[in-house]
Amino acid sequence: MDIDGKIGIGLLGFGVVGSEVARILVEKSERLAQQVGAPLIIQGILVRDTVKSRRFESLSNLITTNPTDILDSPQVDIVVELMGGEEPAADYLRTALEQTKHVVTANKEVMATHGPELIRLAEEREVNLLYEASVGGGIPIIGPLRKDILANEVTSLHAIINGTTNYILTRMSQEGTDFRTALDSAQELGYAEADPSKDVDGTDAAFKLAILATLAFHTQVVGSDVYREGISGLTSEDFRYAREMGYAIKLLAVARRDEGGLSLRVHPALVPEEHLLAKVEGPFNAVEIEGDLVGRVMFHGQGAGPRPTSSAVVGDILEVARGIASGRRPVRQGTLRNGLSIVPMEELVTQYYARVTVADRAGVLAQIATVLGELDISIASVIQKKATPANQTAELMIMTHTSREADVREAVRRLEELAVVKEIVSLIRVEHWS
Amino acid sequence: MDIDGKIGIGLLGFGVVGSEVARILVEKSERLAQQVGAPLIIQGILVRDTVKSRRFESLSNLITTNPTDILDSPQVDIVVELMGGEEPAADYLRTALEQTKHVVTANKEVMATHGPELIRLAEEREVNLLYEASVGGGIPIIGPLRKDILANEVTSLHAIINGTTNYILTRMSQEGTDFRTALDSAQELGYAEADPSKDVDGTDAAFKLAILATLAFHTQVVGSDVYREGISGLTSEDFRYAREMGYAIKLLAVARRDEGGLSLRVHPALVPEEHLLAKVEGPFNAVEIEGDLVGRVMFHGQGAGPRPTSSAVVGDILEVARGIASGRRPVRQGTLRNGLSIVPMEELVTQYYARVTVADRAGVLAQIATVLGELDISIASVIQKKATPANQTAELMIMTHTSREADVREAVRRLEELAVVKEIVSLIRVEHWS
Repeated sequence: MDIDGKIGIGLLGFGVVGSEVARILVEKSERLAQQVGAPLIIQGILVRDTVKSRRFESLSNLITTNPTDILDSPQVDIVVELMGGEEPAADYLRTALEQTKHVVTANKEVMATHGPELIRLAEEREVNLLYEASVGGGIPIIGPLRKDILANEVTSLHAIINGTTNYILTRMSQEGTDFRTALDSAQELGYAEADPSKDVDGTDAAFKLAILATLAFHTQVVGSDVYREGISGLTSEDFRYAREMGYAIKLLAVARRDEGGLSLRVHPALVPEEHLLAKVEGPFNAVEIEGDLVGRVMFHGQGAGPRPTSSAVVGDILEVARGIASGRRPVRQGTLRNGLSIVPMEELVTQYYARVTVADRAGVLAQIATVLGELDISIASVIQKKATPANQTAELMIMTHTSREADVREAVRRLEELAVVKEIVSLIRVEHWS
Repeated sequence: MDIDGKIGIGLLGFGVVGSEVARILVEKSERLAQQVGAPLIIQGILVRDTVKSRRFESLSNLITTNPTDILDSPQVDIVVELMGGEEPAADYLRTALEQTKHVVTANKEVMATHGPELIRLAEEREVNLLYEASVGGGIPIIGPLRKDILANEVTSLHAIINGTTNYILTRMSQEGTDFRTALDSAQELGYAEADPSKDVDGTDAAFKLAILATLAFHTQVVGSDVYREGISGLTSEDFRYAREMGYAIKLLAVARRDEGGLSLRVHPALVPEEHLLAKVEGPFNAVEIEGDLVGRVMFHGQGAGPRPTSSAVVGDILEVARGIASGRRPVRQGTLRNGLSIVPMEELVTQYYARVTVADRAGVLAQIATVLGELDISIASVIQKKATPANQTAELMIMTHTSREADVREAVRRLEELAVVKEIVSLIRVEHWS
C-alpha cells in the first residue's frame, strides 16, 4: 500500500485469464475498492512479447517484458501470476515472496511441485500466498479446505478435477463415440488443447490432487506422489457394459487416509450411478470431501475457462487486499503436521472390472478362476458378453470382490500367459464409498 | 486473549450442538491449539437448568445459569451462541458485541431477523460476528459468499435448505406415501421435530434464504421479506404426474436479481429431473449460486445434525481465534451497498402447473381456456388424467407457459367461480433456469 492508500498489483502473464483479470480490476474498480476499503491499481503487466499484447489498449503503458519491473517495484504489493508452466513462473514467485510481496497464483504445476517450499517461504516473510484458481476454476475449494472444514479430520477426497477428460468421457458415454472422436470434438469446442496429453494422461488431475491433498491431510504431497492412469484406453463398450451394471465411468482423483497412510491416485473408475459424482457432466468439475464431523460435502461448478478462473483469482486478490488495507499479518497456512506416509499403489484394496477376450471353448472359465483363486481374488460375477464365431473368441466381463492391487496385477500377468486368454481389453477399478 | 496467551470461549447453550462443540474443543484441543497458535479454553457454559446439564462431567464446574458470568467475563474472548430461538439469544449477542466480544452463532432466526443490526454493531466494535452454521449445517456457504465469490455480481441463488422437508418430499416421491405418513417417518428418525410447523410451512427456509440473500446481493433482507408456501398441500399424485413430465418436486428457496429488484421466495416447485438440485435426496441440503464470472457453483452436504453443525461452529471459532492470536482486526463484512428493492410476489413470472377437478362433460376445457386467455395465460399442455364416473368428474393437468403470478392468482379466483370447476387441487410453480 503506497502513501495514498492504493494497493498495487503486478500481473505476470496477459493471456486469456490475465486479460480477464485486468478487465475485472478495471471495470469493477469502484465496487472492489469499496469492498477492500482501498483502491486496487494495476502497476505493471509482464508479457513475453509486447507486440502480441494489445488486448487492452488502455493498459498498454503498463506492459513490460522485464520481470524485475514488477518483482522489484516498490509500488507492487500483490504479484498475480497467470503465466502457467513450471518455469520461469516458480522462479518469479520465489523472488516475489523473498521481496515480501503477497502472491496470488492460478498455477497448479508450480503449486503441485514447489508448493510446500513456497508456502514455507510465504510464512517466513509473513506474506500471503493464495492459489484458489489452481484447482477447480472458480469453485471455492481451497478456501473451504483452509478454513471452513478445518475443524475436521479429513478421511477421504473424491474428485473430478479435469474438465477436458470429463467432457470426453461424457461424450463417449452419451453418444457411444470412441475416444478419438470425442477428443476431436473437445478440441473443436476449446475444451481440449492442441496438445491434450497432460489432461488425457491424468497429469493435470494429479497436480490438482496433490494441491488438495496437501491441504486436506496436512501432509506434504507433490504431483509425482500421485499414481496416474489416463483415459485413452477406454472404449465405448466399457461405457455400455458399465451402464448395464449401474455405473458411470469417470476419471476420478482419490485421496484417502487409513492406518497405512495416504493413498493418492488418478485413474478411470466405475462410479455407482446414484452417486452425485456420476452425474457431473461435460466440462464441469466436482470435489467431494469427507470429514469426521461434516460428513460428505460436495462442491460443483465450472472447472476452467477465463471467467470462472478470474473469479477465483480476483477473490484471492480481494482477500489479500483486505488484509493489507486493515494492516493485518496474513493468516497462518495449515501446518504440515501430519507427515503421513504415501501408501504404494500396490497396496490399494478395491473392486476391479475386467473385460477379457478368450477362446470360445469349454473349460476357459475354470482356468481363469483357478488363476484368480490362487491369488485370493474372489469373483463377484462373470458375464459372457459376445461370441465372435469367426475368430472362435468370446468376451468375458469379470467383476471381482475387493482385492489387492498387487494381486490383481499378478493375475493380469498370469492370465496373459494362458493360451486361452487372447487379450485383457480393459481393467478398471470400481469405487464404492458409501 | 489473556496474559498466558489463552483464548477464552463462552458457550451459550449446552444442548446437542453445544455439547458436541464442547467435546470437539476438549478432545481436539491439542490440534486446534496448533492450528490457531494458542490454546482454546472453555471459560463458561450457560444453561437454563443445571440439573439437566450433565452431558460432560469434566466441564460441570463451568456451568452457570447466569448469562453475565459469560457475557461480562474478562476471560471470555469469543461468545458461542447455540441456544436457538429469537430471544433471549438476540439480546445476549447484542450484549456480547457491545462488550467487544467476538461472536459465533448458529442461530438462523436471530441472524434472519436482527442480522443487519448485529453486523453493524460488530463492525462498529471491530469484532467478528460469524454464523456459518446458521445455514446448511456444515456445508461451507457463508464463507464462500463472504470471500471466494466476492468478485462476482450474483444473479440468482437456488437452494434446498430445509432437510426436514426434503426428507419428507423424498419419501413421498420414492414411496408414493402421503404427506402425513412421510412426516411421521421423519419424526421417528429425528429429521423432524415434535412441532414441525416452522420447517413444513417454509419459515425455516425463509430465514436461511434471508441470510444468504443479504450476503449474496449486498442488500438488507430479513425473513419476513421472503414469500413462503409450505409443503403440506402436496399429494402423491403430484409427484407421480411431475415424474411423468420429467420433474422432481422440491421445496425451493429462490433469490433472483433482475431490473425490478430482488425477488425472494420459498415454495414447492417442479424442478427438471436433469438438474442437480432435483437429485438432492433425503435430509441433504444444496445451494446453487450463479455469478457473472463463476457461472453456477453448487454446494451439497448434510444440512443439519450436531456433528455437521459443530463442524461449521468450530470452523468459525478457529477463524476468529486465528485472528485474535495474530493480533488482527476482523475482516470487514460485505457492505449492504446495493439496497435493492424487494419485488412483490405478484410480479413473479414463471411457469405454473395446475391440477383441477372438473365436471366430466363437453365444453369444460373451452370455459377454462377462455378464462386463462382473458388473462394472457397461455397453455403449454393439458392432459386429462382420470375420470371418476361415480362423481361425473375428471381431472385436468394444465401446464402454462410463463405467466405473471398476479394473473395466475386472478385466474384461480375466476376458475373457482366456474360451475364446471370442482376444485383446484394443486398449483405448483415450475422452475427452469438453464
